[in-house]
Amino acid sequence: MEDDSSHLAKPEAPNAMEAEAVVDEEERDPETESNYLNEPLLKRNRTLSTSPLALVGAAVSHIESLDYEINENDLFKHDWRSRSRVQVLQYVFLKWLLAFLVGLLTGLVATVINLAIENIAGYKLLAVVGFIREERYLSGLVFFTGINFLLTLSAALLCVFFAPTAAGPGIPEIKAYLNGVNTPNMFGATTLLVKIVGSIGAVSAGLDLGKEGPLVHIASCIASLLAQGGPDNYRLKWRWLRYFNNDRDRRDIITCGSSSGVCAAFRAPVGGVLFALEEVATWWRSALLWRTFCSTAVVVVVLRAFVEICSSRKCGLFGAGGLIIFDVSDVKVSYHSMDLIPVIIIGIIGGLLGSLYNHLLHKVLRLYSFINQKGKLHKLLLALGVSLFTSVCQYCLPFLAQCRPCDPSFREACPTNDRAGNFKQFNCPAGHYNDLATLLLTTNDDAVRNIFSSHTSSEFHHTSILIFFALYCILGLITFGIAVPSGLFLPIILMGSGYGRLLGKLMGPYTNLDQGLYAVLGAASLMSGSMRMTVSVCVIFLELTNNLLLLPITMIVLLIAKTVGDSFNLSIYEIILELKGLPFLDANPEPWMRNLTVGELADAKPPVVPLCGIEKVSRIVDVLKNTNHNAFPIVDEDVLVPGTVATCATELHGLILRAHLLQALKKKWFQTERRRTAEWEAREKFNWVELSERKLKIEQVAVTHQEMEMYVDLHPLTNTTPYTVVESMSVAKAMVLFRQVGLRHMLIVPKYQGAGVPAVVGILTRQDLRAYNILTAFPHLPTHNHQQKHN
Amino acid sequence: MEDDSSHLAKPEAPNAMEAEAVVDEEERDPETESNYLNEPLLKRNRTLSTSPLALVGAAVSHIESLDYEINENDLFKHDWRSRSRVQVLQYVFLKWLLAFLVGLLTGLVATVINLAIENIAGYKLLAVVGFIREERYLSGLVFFTGINFLLTLSAALLCVFFAPTAAGPGIPEIKAYLNGVNTPNMFGATTLLVKIVGSIGAVSAGLDLGKEGPLVHIASCIASLLAQGGPDNYRLKWRWLRYFNNDRDRRDIITCGSSSGVCAAFRAPVGGVLFALEEVATWWRSALLWRTFCSTAVVVVVLRAFVEICSSRKCGLFGAGGLIIFDVSDVKVSYHSMDLIPVIIIGIIGGLLGSLYNHLLHKVLRLYSFINQKGKLHKLLLALGVSLFTSVCQYCLPFLAQCRPCDPSFREACPTNDRAGNFKQFNCPAGHYNDLATLLLTTNDDAVRNIFSSHTSSEFHHTSILIFFALYCILGLITFGIAVPSGLFLPIILMGSGYGRLLGKLMGPYTNLDQGLYAVLGAASLMSGSMRMTVSVCVIFLELTNNLLLLPITMIVLLIAKTVGDSFNLSIYEIILELKGLPFLDANPEPWMRNLTVGELADAKPPVVPLCGIEKVSRIVDVLKNTNHNAFPIVDEDVLVPGTVATCATELHGLILRAHLLQALKKKWFQTERRRTAEWEAREKFNWVELSERKLKIEQVAVTHQEMEMYVDLHPLTNTTPYTVVESMSVAKAMVLFRQVGLRHMLIVPKYQGAGVPAVVGILTRQDLRAYNILTAFPHLPTHNHQQKHN
Repeated sequence: MEDDSSHLAKPEAPNAMEAEAVVDEEERDPETESNYLNEPLLKRNRTLSTSPLALVGAAVSHIESLDYEINENDLFKHDWRSRSRVQVLQYVFLKWLLAFLVGLLTGLVATVINLAIENIAGYKLLAVVGFIREERYLSGLVFFTGINFLLTLSAALLCVFFAPTAAGPGIPEIKAYLNGVNTPNMFGATTLLVKIVGSIGAVSAGLDLGKEGPLVHIASCIASLLAQGGPDNYRLKWRWLRYFNNDRDRRDIITCGSSSGVCAAFRAPVGGVLFALEEVATWWRSALLWRTFCSTAVVVVVLRAFVEICSSRKCGLFGAGGLIIFDVSDVKVSYHSMDLIPVIIIGIIGGLLGSLYNHLLHKVLRLYSFINQKGKLHKLLLALGVSLFTSVCQYCLPFLAQCRPCDPSFREACPTNDRAGNFKQFNCPAGHYNDLATLLLTTNDDAVRNIFSSHTSSEFHHTSILIFFALYCILGLITFGIAVPSGLFLPIILMGSGYGRLLGKLMGPYTNLDQGLYAVLGAASLMSGSMRMTVSVCVIFLELTNNLLLLPITMIVLLIAKTVGDSFNLSIYEIILELKGLPFLDANPEPWMRNLTVGELADAKPPVVPLCGIEKVSRIVDVLKNTNHNAFPIVDEDVLVPGTVATCATELHGLILRAHLLQALKKKWFQTERRRTAEWEAREKFNWVELSERKLKIEQVAVTHQEMEMYVDLHPLTNTTPYTVVESMSVAKAMVLFRQVGLRHMLIVPKYQGAGVPAVVGILTRQDLRAYNILTAFPHLPTHNHQQKHN
Repeated sequence: MEDDSSHLAKPEAPNAMEAEAVVDEEERDPETESNYLNEPLLKRNRTLSTSPLALVGAAVSHIESLDYEINENDLFKHDWRSRSRVQVLQYVFLKWLLAFLVGLLTGLVATVINLAIENIAGYKLLAVVGFIREERYLSGLVFFTGINFLLTLSAALLCVFFAPTAAGPGIPEIKAYLNGVNTPNMFGATTLLVKIVGSIGAVSAGLDLGKEGPLVHIASCIASLLAQGGPDNYRLKWRWLRYFNNDRDRRDIITCGSSSGVCAAFRAPVGGVLFALEEVATWWRSALLWRTFCSTAVVVVVLRAFVEICSSRKCGLFGAGGLIIFDVSDVKVSYHSMDLIPVIIIGIIGGLLGSLYNHLLHKVLRLYSFINQKGKLHKLLLALGVSLFTSVCQYCLPFLAQCRPCDPSFREACPTNDRAGNFKQFNCPAGHYNDLATLLLTTNDDAVRNIFSSHTSSEFHHTSILIFFALYCILGLITFGIAVPSGLFLPIILMGSGYGRLLGKLMGPYTNLDQGLYAVLGAASLMSGSMRMTVSVCVIFLELTNNLLLLPITMIVLLIAKTVGDSFNLSIYEIILELKGLPFLDANPEPWMRNLTVGELADAKPPVVPLCGIEKVSRIVDVLKNTNHNAFPIVDEDVLVPGTVATCATELHGLILRAHLLQALKKKWFQTERRRTAEWEAREKFNWVELSERKLKIEQVAVTHQEMEMYVDLHPLTNTTPYTVVESMSVAKAMVLFRQVGLRHMLIVPKYQGAGVPAVVGILTRQDLRAYNILTAFPHLPTHNHQQKHN
């Protein structure tokens, strides 16, 4: 991210805080003493900020921070004042309209995806059943593997060649976006299309991945595209939309999008809102709760409407299920205090397995990123290899299972040869079923439904469930990192339900709980153990299983699993965020941050580059070319009457953004003398809509030799009220401000002003406040308890 | 609240922002120019801050702000640094232990309350049934009215004489507390006890009020008492608890308490968490979500355990119901797009009725507060009058209803003479039931259960429901303000279910929806229309009714009702907050706040009273006696080496709290000369536990004549890093900081420092940022759109 930093010679003021400095005095760079006008503007070594690079999609990209601060420069202020009541109403109305549209479009897209997957996978499985019935087992294998291969190929080709950012779940990037990290190409139209088509392909191919994560990303893309009025190159220039050209409003809409996505994935509207609140969003407010709730309500209504339309087989194989996917509402939940013991065991094992899964997945992802870096062909081969392995296992393993006779006590048809159904005949004689085929040779959704099924304690053999569990452990580890859109929810649910049901079989004689319930609790515990969400997982499972009486035991399982998991490692999303190098800012400062002042941080950074209120064009061009800072403090004299000639002094006037400097150059906002302009002049020159633009690069701006000698009045473009902190403030306290208000740049002012003291000691950005970066720059910090946050 | 304000002569600096000042120049007070040492320290007229008074319980009390800022003075910093890993673990462990204990105790207390109410009210009703069966109608009336009278009397006596703060629901005050307003005696042990006993009395007396609001208050009291280690006078001096002696941690625990309370009231754990999130809490973070969830999980487990224990009539009449109170899970929800029309109608009517109810209740509360001010006897008489009216209506009105024959298609026993039961025989012949008695002559909980009952479309006659609805509209308006613990949820649910069921009867021929469902939706719509909550009401209703398929229509009803209600007036809690004068700080700044700078606000306030870093005792005593400010800026020289003699200059050193000044006087932290002390001296003198104390008054501190001439070194007690904003910042932007970080005092620094410019222009507090107060001080502000917040 940007590493703006300040120079303006910092004299070693005899400051009371100085005595406690953690860095040795000798480590400071003597160059800070030199005059900033002669500063080389090049980055130095031994600085605090790491490079603003992260892994986005497959490539290492330059990422930017978002800015939620209210920019109070003359132009924006004027715009705000001139907004009429009607315009404010337009703005409010548009917010609601967008929330509604996000819900509507997400619901429609989710329906299309479900429809496509159910039909493609369904007809594929029907054909396989046909081969098996004719005992043409080898042809069946070739057909099954071949179709899956082609589906994976299409998904992987799209992801590799058109939108690398569409691979994976996308949830970590959304989480980072809502935390204030803007990753390029994450919410574009290409990404959206590739994600939709790729997701259909990958899920239909029977890979061990879900459409849940991708749906969240898809919904966020929809939200982002709606807010900016269409794809980058073909934006709608609707006047109303210009009010949304700021990071705050886009953040809110993308939050709506992410909750709509979860809602569409699990058909869980309250769970969707809570997921956005608990896992994805960094900033939250009551009004947002209401708006996301509106979006998810629309999603559910759209989904229900289509399920109703499709209920009579009008949509091919889609439309069997209602709003609830894994309905276990007919389980009579009657549990006693003794049943707490298996519940606690499930929680503990879930936590252990979850953290183990996180640990192993981390290793696998590291290995995969090594393979993926070798080129596009390697990526394709990896994805196809995984697909082949998955298909072969899913097809061949059921032959290992013994045929089991249908028990008349089963409530469902047995055996079945349909696409769905709980008792697949597969290679068995009439009146018998193959329990492993029921779990493997089906869509992932149906596999979950089958293993969750209640009143079927004798359906599965130990060994079958064990094989199922082991296979999905392996698949869950090797599938996630390949270059197709892939969600993490379903693999974890599959693994968890496997071990849960297995545990249920083992504890069968000692418990009253249904084995389907064990599978549900196992899935919940593994989700909590790996993703470390509690409330939202709980509500999602409630909405999935439609049984509120499960609530108390689900809660206990989730809390135990999260506690156990947290004592080993970070949540899976945090691990992925770290792996990708996205500078996510944590909610709680580390305890040792209380012992470090922001002044010390500023000392470890390259000096800030201040500009004068009325600056020479050549210096601005110079500064923009030679630094990658995104904001520059403006220093000035205190008395500046418009029209008079000014000199550059050392009082802080405000902060100017790189984008606004570029606009000043592009618009040729030049004058021949150091003169303060009147407010109306700037207002005539600049349009605040243009000022919201961020895409301009210094290379795109041409300045003639003659213009280089002219001056620019930066005052109208300067944010005159940046948030400042005093240099003696602890990093922990400064971080509260930075994160709560959602800053991009935080100015550090000296404790005591006076002659020779600079107006700005430094500028802190997101990167500077990350624990890892600080610890790299200050290796001597006492971090004996830096793992232990006080939450 | 405190109105600290700053003086230090503010010269009319030719500031760029000045031109836009909204206040006329002439309105400024010329006194601000005078030397602060000669300042009279008296309050002036025409100031911004209103008095820090609010209606707490029945009395007008002095309220204080809470302070969530990290106080970085030398002593606290030292304490933090010296905390070992073990102590940090203790702190984390204790947080969880407290969350657990809050849940446990809330569950136990809720069980006791339920048990007492069910038994008292149950045996009362059984006795009444006995009288009716013997046709001794007048004796029945006397008995019913008399018992209710006595129960109300006991509740009212307790509330009037022992704990006036226990009257009412308590939720507005909790909301204010979590927003940062500390109301005295709100969370004491007496309040807790009176609330428990009073709530049992008031609900058993059959008054139109619920135990839901009081339970939230009770749970918050439990949380507060636990966090401070017991009642004020008998506090546990456990070492571990001292970590909780700050406003941040108490805020978190009370948030846990409030969600536990809702959970205990509705047995809705997720709803409880969401209620705390949506309605009560101002600050929220992920860790809190998890901890409140833990508390509510414990509450549910405790409640379930007792329900199980009591299931076989071991606890008298308590224990019939399970976890779900109003179970409508057997309603087959099959609705089509046409059913949207009644759903929308319910939503609109709910919004209209809700806002009308808010409007009328506001008038009634104003009238009641007028009556209540006349004395304790008036309060008692009011409560008893309402009780008499309620009892007479509940007993006599059923005689108006015609007896209806029992229909064999009813699923339940008919008629019943039990305490509970859906078809009360009352005065009817065998085989008949009185539908109005079913609704009126029962506990409120049972009334709700009966009117929610499904598959009973012919049970109630139009007129009966109309009478029920009309009666509860009247009771709902006149009962809330009387001096007993009273919740708002149940009256609103009763009213709403009445109109919902009525609407269902009217629309019967045109709809497929069950009439019980209409009642549920009516109740939800009125709650949303009056309280303006959406997500939490939705989840509470889901958990109450145990039917997830209701979700989409419930959501639509809630959203419509809230939208309609919002276009008329504020939510009922906000109305009560305003009525009580509690300075609640809104989430969104008003649009016109963008056009006003904090500097202008500071000008409208009395000047701040700065102290020197090393100050004379006499001046400190003087300042403390003559102002009610709670914080004072410390101005100082920039170079201050310990041991040297210092002078008082105009550089800002930090902010000192009144409580800490009082500690310095009490501990006699005096010295004979203006000398800077070393850090260890202060550390030996002061204990940071004492510094967390707030109760000390200046009258309790004795200073001798001789000591008056001595000096105090305030540096070690000064918070050296208060959050500051520049005077040209808009109020809207400053408010973001104030509210997001949870400040008590916000320092305003001048735009340009320099000779003669004060270090601090002003101090803003909560009161100064309230829209109402600003508009009073700046009557010329263009507020044409101040109703319209951009949320």
